[in-house]
Amino acid sequence: RVDGKRLWDSLMAMAEIGATPKGGVRRLTLTEVDRQGRERFRGWCEALGLTVRVDAIGNMFARREGRDSTRLPVLMGSHLDSQPSGGKFDGALGVIAGLEVMRSLNDLNIQTEAPVELVNWTDEEGSRFGYSLMGSGAWAGVYPLEKVYGLRDVEGVSVEEALTAIGYKGEVAAAPFPADAYFELHIEQGPILEKEGKQIGIVTGAQAQVWYDAVVTGQDAHAGTTPPSARRDALVCAARIIDLVDRMMRARGEDGRGTVGQLHVLPNSRNVVPGEVRFSVEFRHPDFGEIERLAAQFPREAGFIARDCGTPLKLEELFRLPAQPFDPGCVDLVRQAAARLGLPAREIVSGAGHDAVYVARSVPTAMIFTPCKDGLSHNEAESIEPSEAEAGCQVLFEAVVARANR
Amino acid sequence: RVDGKRLWDSLMAMAEIGATPKGGVRRLTLTEVDRQGRERFRGWCEALGLTVRVDAIGNMFARREGRDSTRLPVLMGSHLDSQPSGGKFDGALGVIAGLEVMRSLNDLNIQTEAPVELVNWTDEEGSRFGYSLMGSGAWAGVYPLEKVYGLRDVEGVSVEEALTAIGYKGEVAAAPFPADAYFELHIEQGPILEKEGKQIGIVTGAQAQVWYDAVVTGQDAHAGTTPPSARRDALVCAARIIDLVDRMMRARGEDGRGTVGQLHVLPNSRNVVPGEVRFSVEFRHPDFGEIERLAAQFPREAGFIARDCGTPLKLEELFRLPAQPFDPGCVDLVRQAAARLGLPAREIVSGAGHDAVYVARSVPTAMIFTPCKDGLSHNEAESIEPSEAEAGCQVLFEAVVARANR
Ligand SMILES: NC(=O)NCCC(=O)O
Ligand SMILES: NC(=O)NCCC(=O)O
Repeated sequence: RVDGKRLWDSLMAMAEIGATPKGGVRRLTLTEVDRQGRERFRGWCEALGLTVRVDAIGNMFARREGRDSTRLPVLMGSHLDSQPSGGKFDGALGVIAGLEVMRSLNDLNIQTEAPVELVNWTDEEGSRFGYSLMGSGAWAGVYPLEKVYGLRDVEGVSVEEALTAIGYKGEVAAAPFPADAYFELHIEQGPILEKEGKQIGIVTGAQAQVWYDAVVTGQDAHAGTTPPSARRDALVCAARIIDLVDRMMRARGEDGRGTVGQLHVLPNSRNVVPGEVRFSVEFRHPDFGEIERLAAQFPREAGFIARDCGTPLKLEELFRLPAQPFDPGCVDLVRQAAARLGLPAREIVSGAGHDAVYVARSVPTAMIFTPCKDGLSHNEAESIEPSEAEAGCQVLFEAVVARANR
Repeated sequence: RVDGKRLWDSLMAMAEIGATPKGGVRRLTLTEVDRQGRERFRGWCEALGLTVRVDAIGNMFARREGRDSTRLPVLMGSHLDSQPSGGKFDGALGVIAGLEVMRSLNDLNIQTEAPVELVNWTDEEGSRFGYSLMGSGAWAGVYPLEKVYGLRDVEGVSVEEALTAIGYKGEVAAAPFPADAYFELHIEQGPILEKEGKQIGIVTGAQAQVWYDAVVTGQDAHAGTTPPSARRDALVCAARIIDLVDRMMRARGEDGRGTVGQLHVLPNSRNVVPGEVRFSVEFRHPDFGEIERLAAQFPREAGFIARDCGTPLKLEELFRLPAQPFDPGCVDLVRQAAARLGLPAREIVSGAGHDAVYVARSVPTAMIFTPCKDGLSHNEAESIEPSEAEAGCQVLFEAVVARANR
């Protein structure tokens, strides 16, 4: 069995890097803090005798050889980057649990048939450069490397510059290599498992999404002298679009998701009618058909609002992601492991995007969820129990070993 | 007569300090750039033999003695601080025109009966610390100095720290001293004079205002996993309040003003339901009765919205300013000067706040407006003609000399 205490200790050691006063983590992708997290992870892997390679987008692969060198590797992993004010477990759990699987394999002197590789994907969160699942997306060929290198954060730093600055622009091509399977353990980030008292979520797939960048252009003007008829207030227009996003979400019932999470006002002065507002928009739904309808309806209705306000809207669709079902064989290995261990489990569709979604395009994939307190994530108060981490890790161990030895 | 070319050259020399690529000015109050502007101004004053003193809130007074040392001084001036993306003339025109009045008095060897003092008021704009007319407000006793010293910008720097950092926390008490009159020349910052082909606005007073700070508290949550029923989205609530401000403004017709100019989202990440939004709100109207009704209605209706959204609202009223009529005698000196010079003029109520509003509480006061292109201000494209600056300066000269020699 895996060592639950060792797993927890390493999770806490990783959470020190970028720790925030409120008990969360700020380890934004490709920053100095991210570099420190990567170095700690690399050190742990090398101490186990694993070989670490880094690809051109900074994805890290730590390999443990199997008995049969002709067999394709079984992959497991997740991400070490976090939200600007994120929690200790979103991403880190899957990577550190994979490390614990490797440590347990060493302890138990198990040589698997197939090689096993542990992955730390670059920039899963998407909060810095605007594209979630960036590293796995580049690896899977969803995003051409050129395009990804050229993405810039709000300070104007490009992905390529950031990779170089922290020394993680690797030599290996960022391209999918043949692999036998991919398993990812992650916290649910939602309330379902906790509410139903389940220890394990058998993730059957992930929901569909569409993300946008929006810019509303008005005209800077004096708040005291500019009469209503002469105003072109970019923030009033943005406010009505934010309300539209919320109404479009609610029109889809409890399965709908619609969020404006990021917004900047220019010039952002109390007595100036705002001349420009830049903001993000995203919608999600388990049914891709709904996303396609949202993606037809939203630009049209937002455009009407902008026309009424006299403030032109530029809307750029960043990506549209169909719902992604996972591989039935891999999902079944998760189901069997949970059953064998006597852990209460249920099937679940992921509300969040995960690197597994892109990996699943070329590699048979499954995910394991564990509960988190109050369903809270992307929040510094994100919290799980050591026993929950251990149970998830044990399921990961069993699924990976079963697949590698089949 | 005043020297129009010299006036324009000095305006352009001041506009170099904090010049922006788009032709505007960024000379935020009590920054290093503001210090540079103040030093240039001080140098010009001292070259004329004026005595410069600085009070405890950084207001600068440059004095030219009169023949009769028992007479109270006649004041003139405005402000050298700017909006974050402001224009070259908002404030600077009144200060530099006052300088040109002093230069012309020297050139013409005029010794006035009463002393004349030129003032550069600290932080007229209010965009950094939240209180417009801060320096004149402290001087007039509207704001206790303790309170003003403790105000902080978004980076947490206090007014007192900023004053000390640039060496402008002066020795003289920031308190109203007896003065005979105050005259302020300013661009209109609105469209009326230009539209009617008038060169001079005879300002009879300024409209009423109320300003607020608002904080909406929701809960950071994952945008993909958090269902509509579980969301407490601070930005959706703020958006509905922004729309309310706009509707309340429009319900008052063309005299209404209602603006949310500044807004910050936390944590401001694309895939996080916003947990907190901080923003400014202000209303203005020529009739203080309307402002009192707005100030009763707005907190109530915004509170209903916040309750509906499940996101508590904290609303702090920063200040409430009655409409301020100017002194009939001083206003008449402006009217007479414009008539004598044959300049097309009209009476006008100021839509913007001005230091003159607080000074008027203890000193007989009037203002002179000049047109600006397209009525545009608080915008880098703010623009005036050299002939317009000269005409305004000549009226200022005549009004000040007439008052000082009466
Ligand atoms: N798992 C997770 O939080 N991923 C970030 C990308 C997303 O917003 O779904
Ligand atoms: N004149 C001017 O722009 N003053 C700034 C204060 C205000 O917003 O009215």
